[in-house]
Amino acid sequence: MIESFTYNRFLQSSRTMGGTKNDNPDQVHLSFGYPYSDLFPIQELAEAARQATFEQGRSALHYFGGPAISYLPSWVSGRLEKIGIQVPVEQIKITIGAAHAIEVMARILCNVEDEVWVEDPSFFGAIRMFNLAGASTIRPFEIDSNGILIEPLQVELERRVQAGEALPKLLYVMPNYQNPTGVSLSVERRKQLAALAKKYGFYILEDDAYLELNYTNKFVPAIHTFAPDHVIHIGTFSKIIGPGVRLGWAVVPPALLKFVQQFMSGSQTNPYMQEIVSTYLQNNDFQSYLDGVNAHYKDQRDTMVHALVNTFGDLIEVEIPQGGFFLSVRFTQPTDVVQLTQIAEQHGVSVLNGSAFYANREGRNTIRLCFTYCSKERIVVGIQRLYEAYQQLN
Amino acid sequence: MIESFTYNRFLQSSRTMGGTKNDNPDQVHLSFGYPYSDLFPIQELAEAARQATFEQGRSALHYFGGPAISYLPSWVSGRLEKIGIQVPVEQIKITIGAAHAIEVMARILCNVEDEVWVEDPSFFGAIRMFNLAGASTIRPFEIDSNGILIEPLQVELERRVQAGEALPKLLYVMPNYQNPTGVSLSVERRKQLAALAKKYGFYILEDDAYLELNYTNKFVPAIHTFAPDHVIHIGTFSKIIGPGVRLGWAVVPPALLKFVQQFMSGSQTNPYMQEIVSTYLQNNDFQSYLDGVNAHYKDQRDTMVHALVNTFGDLIEVEIPQGGFFLSVRFTQPTDVVQLTQIAEQHGVSVLNGSAFYANREGRNTIRLCFTYCSKERIVVGIQRLYEAYQQLN
Repeated sequence: MIESFTYNRFLQSSRTMGGTKNDNPDQVHLSFGYPYSDLFPIQELAEAARQATFEQGRSALHYFGGPAISYLPSWVSGRLEKIGIQVPVEQIKITIGAAHAIEVMARILCNVEDEVWVEDPSFFGAIRMFNLAGASTIRPFEIDSNGILIEPLQVELERRVQAGEALPKLLYVMPNYQNPTGVSLSVERRKQLAALAKKYGFYILEDDAYLELNYTNKFVPAIHTFAPDHVIHIGTFSKIIGPGVRLGWAVVPPALLKFVQQFMSGSQTNPYMQEIVSTYLQNNDFQSYLDGVNAHYKDQRDTMVHALVNTFGDLIEVEIPQGGFFLSVRFTQPTDVVQLTQIAEQHGVSVLNGSAFYANREGRNTIRLCFTYCSKERIVVGIQRLYEAYQQLN
Repeated sequence: MIESFTYNRFLQSSRTMGGTKNDNPDQVHLSFGYPYSDLFPIQELAEAARQATFEQGRSALHYFGGPAISYLPSWVSGRLEKIGIQVPVEQIKITIGAAHAIEVMARILCNVEDEVWVEDPSFFGAIRMFNLAGASTIRPFEIDSNGILIEPLQVELERRVQAGEALPKLLYVMPNYQNPTGVSLSVERRKQLAALAKKYGFYILEDDAYLELNYTNKFVPAIHTFAPDHVIHIGTFSKIIGPGVRLGWAVVPPALLKFVQQFMSGSQTNPYMQEIVSTYLQNNDFQSYLDGVNAHYKDQRDTMVHALVNTFGDLIEVEIPQGGFFLSVRFTQPTDVVQLTQIAEQHGVSVLNGSAFYANREGRNTIRLCFTYCSKERIVVGIQRLYEAYQQLN
């Protein structure tokens, strides 16, 4: 009988696309979006973990948690000042990484017949969660080097109003160092997006996962600042401490707080891990640590950009990201990037082709490279291998 | 515009019902389902946390995690032998507590028009997750001191087949020391439930959260053993280490593994916390620790039962649970348990009335008491206060 069981129909349409599974020890992994392992603050975390357990364990090991439950939102609040976000700490909800924040918001905002709008290309992990939440249509909108184009959004929104058609419930954007392209959204467009959300009555999910990995130390206001009741701003400890802590946050508009509570009630998000991270932050100079991380990543980025330009020359175009994990390489000649990825894999370098990110799966002649996970030496080796693969393809 | 926004319609129907928010320092909290704080293995966990970070941090802080990712499923596998569960470790998935396992399974198995069947009374947290997953009907079935009654299930299933009506997708049961009643499901009924699942083609969600809190040290086979392809067996570290670690597990039938993967992909469940728990388990004699915990809880249970019987006498019936956190008190005279709970609250003792657990919200003359969270001295005080409240009510 169980063979004819009907599972959740949204599962069938959802796809998983992660990095490669190659376990060749000499493989250069430029596909994964991972931090650099040697930058993890191991000594400081080890001490914080011991201290947090010892001093706060009797509350942190309960569902309700210890002092971190109020400390972390206020710490996050302090970090968000530089992008103009000012909300009561009650609106800052600690989540299980940014992914959980996206998932909960998708589940709150979407009904089965609803549409979600995204950048093209966009982060496939977020799109998978919109699919699982039941969004019937994921509609992509083009981006350029200043982020998502406003006019196509505006035209389509107005067309729908005139035609009496349903509007999107949610626009998902990554304002800083977007995954996979590394581009950031201009201030002007942030204002325009906020105005559209207010005019047409939809929410913006502002996934600012890479905010703190800023290699210029210049910050611009979040979309949230221009429409605080229409924007959920999302962040994460994954990029600044380590993904393994599985902690992130969402700045939640007041109207949505009661819904978020329904997903949270009965337990705080990992109270024990919150206590460890909280103790680490209180014991250490985080900004100084982060400055070191960013200097390191900037150096890795420069190494990758130089290796690409020196090796490929006019065969590629690459936009230099001002922060984050990724850059996008566009081949100036028509290139079968799916096949290139496969050949590169055999040449000892893993990369992700654009088909994972673009809605039409064509890939647009692009590949995504992560410059943070591998050492500078390995990056140089990887780009050389990529070039060999490219030559073999052509 | 945002005022007319249509949120996920399943959120509207979902209710949250937790314990009391009373912060009077003298309040006796018999309402919360919490472990006893002084039993947390603080010293051992503090050392494990330090060691795990120091030795495994460079992998555990990544999305993919360290050695714990394979160690914990095999540890769980060893613990499940005593109830007859034998599956490849690949079928044991570590989750964010048992709640997450319930949530993911509900989302995999349910479509919007589907029905979930539960025990009456049942755990309101699980019912909330079924609601959020979109299950349109939660149908309760009566239990007695041997667990859920089989005949009403059988009759309704057969009636539906004859009438050509839809069958349930999922039956949710807590086989051991059920929340809120503390009763366990007999072996005979476990077999019968498994046979029904096989015959009618539905899944059983076997929430065995309290399995290890067994005060008799006698174990019976899990429902899973009688229908391994139709049963998802769920467990948790919350009751045996601490809820704050937010780690649990699900034994997943092979047909469902690919769906579970869609919810997991991109990251393991808290790899860093898994490493801490794994290191703790490897460094310590867990069974000896657990034996101490169970001896303590058995003593607390006995204290509560004696206090109840000595104070209330014939005014109540109470079934002595052989494990777990809870017992259920049934008043032999018709009693407004909602009002009793409110009066008790003012008398300095918090309890939960049956309306939180029974589908019809009537409460059936019952209240749920947790005997694990408070000390024996406080339990005695709490029961005395409850008696004063009862007298005031009548």
